[in-house]
Amino acid sequence: MSMRASLYRHLEPSVRDKGISPLNLFLIALVLVSFLTFSLETEKTFSVEFRNQLAVFNILVLAIFALEYIARVWVAGENQNFKGIKGRMSYMLTPFALTDLLAFLPELIALIITAGDARAIAALKALRLFRLLKLARFVPAFGMLWSALKRSGAQLAVALIVALALIYVSAIVIYFIEGDIQPEAFGSIPRATWWAVATLTTVGYGDSYPITVAGKIFAGIIALAGIGVVALPAGIFASAVSDEVDERAQQKKRNKG
Amino acid sequence: MSMRASLYRHLEPSVRDKGISPLNLFLIALVLVSFLTFSLETEKTFSVEFRNQLAVFNILVLAIFALEYIARVWVAGENQNFKGIKGRMSYMLTPFALTDLLAFLPELIALIITAGDARAIAALKALRLFRLLKLARFVPAFGMLWSALKRSGAQLAVALIVALALIYVSAIVIYFIEGDIQPEAFGSIPRATWWAVATLTTVGYGDSYPITVAGKIFAGIIALAGIGVVALPAGIFASAVSDEVDERAQQKKRNKG
Amino acid sequence: MSMRASLYRHLEPSVRDKGISPLNLFLIALVLVSFLTFSLETEKTFSVEFRNQLAVFNILVLAIFALEYIARVWVAGENQNFKGIKGRMSYMLTPFALTDLLAFLPELIALIITAGDARAIAALKALRLFRLLKLARFVPAFGMLWSALKRSGAQLAVALIVALALIYVSAIVIYFIEGDIQPEAFGSIPRATWWAVATLTTVGYGDSYPITVAGKIFAGIIALAGIGVVALPAGIFASAVSDEVDERAQQKKRNKG
Amino acid sequence: MSMRASLYRHLEPSVRDKGISPLNLFLIALVLVSFLTFSLETEKTFSVEFRNQLAVFNILVLAIFALEYIARVWVAGENQNFKGIKGRMSYMLTPFALTDLLAFLPELIALIITAGDARAIAALKALRLFRLLKLARFVPAFGMLWSALKRSGAQLAVALIVALALIYVSAIVIYFIEGDIQPEAFGSIPRATWWAVATLTTVGYGDSYPITVAGKIFAGIIALAGIGVVALPAGIFASAVSDEVDERAQQKKRNKG
Repeated sequence: MSMRASLYRHLEPSVRDKGISPLNLFLIALVLVSFLTFSLETEKTFSVEFRNQLAVFNILVLAIFALEYIARVWVAGENQNFKGIKGRMSYMLTPFALTDLLAFLPELIALIITAGDARAIAALKALRLFRLLKLARFVPAFGMLWSALKRSGAQLAVALIVALALIYVSAIVIYFIEGDIQPEAFGSIPRATWWAVATLTTVGYGDSYPITVAGKIFAGIIALAGIGVVALPAGIFASAVSDEVDERAQQKKRNKG
Repeated sequence: MSMRASLYRHLEPSVRDKGISPLNLFLIALVLVSFLTFSLETEKTFSVEFRNQLAVFNILVLAIFALEYIARVWVAGENQNFKGIKGRMSYMLTPFALTDLLAFLPELIALIITAGDARAIAALKALRLFRLLKLARFVPAFGMLWSALKRSGAQLAVALIVALALIYVSAIVIYFIEGDIQPEAFGSIPRATWWAVATLTTVGYGDSYPITVAGKIFAGIIALAGIGVVALPAGIFASAVSDEVDERAQQKKRNKG
Repeated sequence: MSMRASLYRHLEPSVRDKGISPLNLFLIALVLVSFLTFSLETEKTFSVEFRNQLAVFNILVLAIFALEYIARVWVAGENQNFKGIKGRMSYMLTPFALTDLLAFLPELIALIITAGDARAIAALKALRLFRLLKLARFVPAFGMLWSALKRSGAQLAVALIVALALIYVSAIVIYFIEGDIQPEAFGSIPRATWWAVATLTTVGYGDSYPITVAGKIFAGIIALAGIGVVALPAGIFASAVSDEVDERAQQKKRNKG
Repeated sequence: MSMRASLYRHLEPSVRDKGISPLNLFLIALVLVSFLTFSLETEKTFSVEFRNQLAVFNILVLAIFALEYIARVWVAGENQNFKGIKGRMSYMLTPFALTDLLAFLPELIALIITAGDARAIAALKALRLFRLLKLARFVPAFGMLWSALKRSGAQLAVALIVALALIYVSAIVIYFIEGDIQPEAFGSIPRATWWAVATLTTVGYGDSYPITVAGKIFAGIIALAGIGVVALPAGIFASAVSDEVDERAQQKKRNKG
């Protein structure tokens, strides 16, 4: 087997019946670690040395993703659809290839052009979120979310409308009850809406709550009656995801059996 | 086809097999936008110019709703039941027609009479909530809520009684434990009830919580044991809504198939 | 029909096929109103006149409950089991009769003996909670709670042990992480347990939360992993209540059909 | 029956068809009480006398657990697998025997060596958590948790990945929106993650929440949409525990019937 064919077997997940090749596992781990370092870079209480090390590590990651991209384009020739220069071109336009490109190119260009100007890079760092999409190739969870969204579409829309209407009406009523007494928290309907969302989702930050008797009675009633209604859309989506997970697990079993 | 017949086809939703006509879509959007501007008008930190623009926009909306009302009364003659002057009269007494009237008339009159006296209008603005009912013609969600309420009536009542009894007993016990130590938060049973509702719905604003050892032990036990019970009514209603949504979706499928 | 027989028909709920007699509805309403006044009496910001009126109303309620008790003992003779003096004696020892007695007698005695000494009465007022049990005669919800508890007994016990073990372990870990930094909130395991309960039930008052990095990471993990486990006992009980409600509704239908 | 055989019947739970022997019940109670005293020892507001009594009680508990361990090793000879010196050796290497050893030996040694040096002992006290494992012999709940974890493994992993991705993306977005305005709470992605976890689990401590309009709108949307998704892993695990409980209850019934 040629070196290209061998590398193809290590890089292309659809070639294997099950499991993930060690090389791909390493690349997945690198994406996850780069998320972690992305998080840590933003924390300004860390020492300068530590953050410099993170910057060096980041350049290393960029280099590896660049190599990975080149390798993937090269080995794509093993696939009948992507043979020759023309085939490589069409491979480079597939969503997965574009994602791989976006995962390193913009930041690499920015690094070279700006020569380390911190501000310009900061804005481009958000592009690292594209690395999340790199995982989509291996993790079926993202496709699952999409299927669940389509499966429960109509029910979700109705439940969402009902929940939003309840939040809107709650906000208006509390605005009329408490608007004059607590203008900071309830002095307008958008402000009162913030309270209604925090209460009906039971998050309850405690930055705004009614203090009058009428306001507390209304808030108590709305909390008892409304929580289930507002939880409906999330519940329907969650149950659709759960159904999707079950269905795929059963399909997998049937394919095996 | 006469102009009246043509307009009737655009305005009357029951004429179409499915979907909503562009004209009705525009009217629905106008209702939703008028809710948004209603919210924004109440926010006093916006500039005067912006709020003046909202006021002008509001007059435009009132005019459109007035035209819509007149058009609906006119085209109602296409329907056999509402032919002639007498038929138009009985159309004007249908709930939908009354809702359409309430959506613009009171505020229009107030605008003319008070000549912009802000206070008098403010009170009448609440009447804009009737515009929410205008949506009922197109959105089956409201009828769905009502069906769900009837379907789960008896179970809902029992679960509600149990939940309220638990809240009441919790409030009394915490009143006896913490009433003397935190009179502001637990000095009376109504105040303790506010705590009981915020805790058992898990909203937990943090404006009142027990500080004594006995109070914390009791609150911990009641939180562990009671949350499920208090969530029952909302859960029953939510599941009734969900059943109703499923049933209607299946009925729709059967009607199609 | 004698007056006693007629009164018996109005007072005894088991005599009627369905519904509640107007007299019993009035007595139920009186119990509910007396709970409301009990709540309001404890609120010290109300005026003295209003609270005096509540005190007068309370004496009226005591008198009516006393009359109700005498009437129930008298009409009990209509029932074959409670005929004659001896029958009345055994009626007076039934749980319902004892509940009726406890609903007025202790407070009545206290009123006469103490001649209005506020403190002595305050302690006895808690006995009014027995009036809640008066409702048990009419509302099947209380018996339903008991059945649900028995039905889910074993599962409930296991789920409760698991939930308590998780809370205990969470409290110990956070105590070791944050105990020295926030002694007020996490300086001992009982204090840390208060945090663990408030977090794992998602009440989240905000009176105590981790501030160190390690504490926040642990709290985040435990919140994501543990919420479902801690919600299990309440969920099992809630679903048992729901099953019980369904079963009784079906049984009622079959009895009718 | 020899004394050893009699003691074996009292100590070994697998000998009995059902129920727990009084001796084992006493040992279970001792473990639970020792957890309680462990908690109370850490509370520094208790008087010195009370805490001295707890210390004496603790030495007593250590002695009883030492005796229990010796007794268990001795009676293990009743079992064919653990006969003779060699059999006892292999018994001492079973997980249950090791747990029993860890429940008293480290702390006993520490007590003797350090002669009461409070700090050294404090660190070793954490070893008392091994006593929790002593309960595993009697309580099937721990094995049940493990089975539930295996049963729902794949679904749990997918749901967890989706929930973590949502938390991560929420944290990044709120970091970009509020990072400059509230550096203390949102100035880095790890800090923003703390907010995202507290919000999406609905704990909502109230130590950090968005204050800008854009931040509140985003937080409201993410709260409405994300709560169900983040609750999925806990929900899947909870339902797996519930299924496991049901299955074991049915199996028990079949074994009896």
